[in-house]
Amino acid sequence: MAKGITKREVNYSQWYNDIIQKAQLAENSAVRGSMVIKPYGYAIWENMRDQLDKMFKATGHVNAYFPLFIPKSFFNKEASHVEGFAKECAVVTHYRLKNDEKSGKIVVDETAKLEEELIVRPTSETIIWDSYKRWIQSYRDLPILVNQWANVVRWEMRTRLFLRTAEFLWQEGHTAHATKQEAVAEAEKMIGIYRDFAENYMAMPVLVGKKTANERFAGADDTYTIEAMMQDGKALQSGTSHFLAQNFAKAFDVKFANEKGELEYVWASSWGVSTRLIGALIMAHSDDNGLVLPPKLAPLKVVIVPVYKKIEDLKTIDTYANKIVDTLTNAGISVKYDNDDKFKPGYKFAEYELKGVPVRLTLGMRDIENNQIELVRRDTLEKSFVSLENVAQQIPQLLDDIQASIYNKAKDFRDSHTYTTDNWEEFKTIIEKGGFVNAHWDGTTETELKIKEQTKATIRLIPENNQPESGKCILTGKPSKQRVIFAKAY
Amino acid sequence: MAKGITKREVNYSQWYNDIIQKAQLAENSAVRGSMVIKPYGYAIWENMRDQLDKMFKATGHVNAYFPLFIPKSFFNKEASHVEGFAKECAVVTHYRLKNDEKSGKIVVDETAKLEEELIVRPTSETIIWDSYKRWIQSYRDLPILVNQWANVVRWEMRTRLFLRTAEFLWQEGHTAHATKQEAVAEAEKMIGIYRDFAENYMAMPVLVGKKTANERFAGADDTYTIEAMMQDGKALQSGTSHFLAQNFAKAFDVKFANEKGELEYVWASSWGVSTRLIGALIMAHSDDNGLVLPPKLAPLKVVIVPVYKKIEDLKTIDTYANKIVDTLTNAGISVKYDNDDKFKPGYKFAEYELKGVPVRLTLGMRDIENNQIELVRRDTLEKSFVSLENVAQQIPQLLDDIQASIYNKAKDFRDSHTYTTDNWEEFKTIIEKGGFVNAHWDGTTETELKIKEQTKATIRLIPENNQPESGKCILTGKPSKQRVIFAKAY
Repeated sequence: MAKGITKREVNYSQWYNDIIQKAQLAENSAVRGSMVIKPYGYAIWENMRDQLDKMFKATGHVNAYFPLFIPKSFFNKEASHVEGFAKECAVVTHYRLKNDEKSGKIVVDETAKLEEELIVRPTSETIIWDSYKRWIQSYRDLPILVNQWANVVRWEMRTRLFLRTAEFLWQEGHTAHATKQEAVAEAEKMIGIYRDFAENYMAMPVLVGKKTANERFAGADDTYTIEAMMQDGKALQSGTSHFLAQNFAKAFDVKFANEKGELEYVWASSWGVSTRLIGALIMAHSDDNGLVLPPKLAPLKVVIVPVYKKIEDLKTIDTYANKIVDTLTNAGISVKYDNDDKFKPGYKFAEYELKGVPVRLTLGMRDIENNQIELVRRDTLEKSFVSLENVAQQIPQLLDDIQASIYNKAKDFRDSHTYTTDNWEEFKTIIEKGGFVNAHWDGTTETELKIKEQTKATIRLIPENNQPESGKCILTGKPSKQRVIFAKAY
Repeated sequence: MAKGITKREVNYSQWYNDIIQKAQLAENSAVRGSMVIKPYGYAIWENMRDQLDKMFKATGHVNAYFPLFIPKSFFNKEASHVEGFAKECAVVTHYRLKNDEKSGKIVVDETAKLEEELIVRPTSETIIWDSYKRWIQSYRDLPILVNQWANVVRWEMRTRLFLRTAEFLWQEGHTAHATKQEAVAEAEKMIGIYRDFAENYMAMPVLVGKKTANERFAGADDTYTIEAMMQDGKALQSGTSHFLAQNFAKAFDVKFANEKGELEYVWASSWGVSTRLIGALIMAHSDDNGLVLPPKLAPLKVVIVPVYKKIEDLKTIDTYANKIVDTLTNAGISVKYDNDDKFKPGYKFAEYELKGVPVRLTLGMRDIENNQIELVRRDTLEKSFVSLENVAQQIPQLLDDIQASIYNKAKDFRDSHTYTTDNWEEFKTIIEKGGFVNAHWDGTTETELKIKEQTKATIRLIPENNQPESGKCILTGKPSKQRVIFAKAY
């Protein structure tokens, strides 16, 4: 492309980076693995966050904020959690800098060493359950339905903008319940909310199910996941929800008096999605011309570009354009009339295409004479002329159509790249090419790891409502009770 | 008080802590100086944040997100900035933990030492200007009007919930401009927005002006401030906006080509408010019964409590109460009908009083017969009976009245505790008792520091539009050109 975006078929990975750079979504910073989320990327995150926040609150959750730092000893308290999270993380050891008289530079003040090191939170179960111990005495204090919007840090060795960064933004829900059933129901409800969000706002179809024991969250008895397919056929885990049983309650000694006055450990769930979803959004829908955004999450839904030769004509066009702006604004649809004379229409077209604005309207003097306006859909790049008088009224329906169309395209893509096989060679070929494979598995972690070693494919999930089906494991030939979904993943 | 709140006149400081604890706003955590913001406290912060965010966006600002960590060397680049900020901060030195085989505990992996230490941001000028160097080439790239909502860490030795914590939440605006005039205008515009927010949303009158050179932000040529008076007569700096001149542009070598193609350094401003404002809100308005919240920031504006003897009566009351709920909800007023049978009305009254809900309605069978409902304003605790049919329609006006009344009360308090004196003994007496003092100052940092040493009073600000007035310095008797505001401060 003229715009300097590598084509997907040439180099998918470079295409992804090009989109992020050209659409000004994010960039690498001076700190290894930490990204800067630029205003346009952040505006998309704000739309995601606001919608999710609304959905969390509508289901009875409230927000709170817990410390960034976690005492190192907290990670020792939950045995499997420490294995999963206390390894690659940022460790604060000192709390003061000083001037070094020799070099004239600032250095760490060795006298200001912390007695106990602090870990920058990679996830907050431990520090939150330390609070819950103070909050929970009786069944009357339950359930606790708390969510936190925060930054977290995991010292990833190989990072990629949005998909895997040392620091990222996310939300983490942490709930406490009187019974196992309630905690399980909460974990299931939240994966349902993530599915709803992914499908109906991100226009991204997802599979819903459980992770295998090997792929579970460190500290969970069950991890629910939503998995989406990217345009290279790889899976992207887009949100997880965990049934934590009484693991953290036991680690932090959090008990409640039930209605009979007996002390019991509290049951828990946790669930989260992150700025990784922006990576998913890009890779699920965008094309070789730039971003394609589902209207429900697009910071700008409609742009109007005037085309004129004489600057006097611009005034006439302004009048008509501003009427459309008013109508759309009143309907709550974000719209921009870009009559900046410094840039040519062609430059603007390319710019808004890059940025994935769902609808572009172009208006010139001839159009006004003909009582029409040119309309271009970003998803299909289809051009049409519509009545100048009615265009604003038609936009809401059009945005709905675009939203549905983007979803359907992604779903068709996923469905046509989802295979069922009982043949190991075929399995390897499909995984190599990219796609989801529905295959039998003998249920052991050993086999799961061998398959990963040989093909890089992991078990993405055991689908919900999976049909029991007798068969033979794709690798070992041992008996299998059900098929599971394999894929290479981000 | 029966509710366990220390009276202000007995121990103001303990009163403040009691309010925070009883209204469940925040608590100390396991990490020294880091607080947990509990759901009710966070809901107030969300209201503040959303309103400020709206005001920032309405004035052309966009949000972005920059890294939590700042390379240590960045602090060496701006000479005065390093003095002010690179001292008491959290230093990340390692990026991995490992299991210690002897103890079975996790320890810092000494082989995973960072080449350059990372500082947890105490403020983000440096890391942001490192980005701006990439963003700015030409005058066409200016202005940049970016804001960030983030957590920051300053290793404070003496901490107090909300007022001074090691970690806190805030927003920090960082703007870049082609001219000095524009940058100054931006700094002034933003202190104006903070004033608007403090006065019209927090119902907290503030003085606006400039800081003395000694009290300026480290790296600024000018610091604008809003200062509020708390109920003990002390000042609380509630927001600051800085004209940074070309200091950070020079430190990070950020130049732009002007319209003539000449390279110039970029001009800058930065501005911020934090969760400290919650502390200000508490101390400005609350009383010995608990929180008093201005309606515009109250998470819950109206609560309806039913009073009944027989559970059958509750159904009748429900019908009437739900009508009020519907009307208020449709008007966009947050309301809760608390018909939870587990708690007595008296308990509920105390609870909502503690939490500062602006309006409480109480409805019983007798009221329904009389077509009336009991209404209690939280600010004055005045009780009245209003028509059951019309109550919902009256609420919006009543909320406006409460908002204005809280503001006026705070303003009367401040005005009656603001003094003008030319007598040093009187000056000391007033400062000791608490209040703002308008006094002459000879303009030197030396005198400013001596006054602080002897009285703990600092110069809070040089008021905007200050009238020139010849006089003698309150301490030294040297010539003075104007009065400035002195007070003890949080």
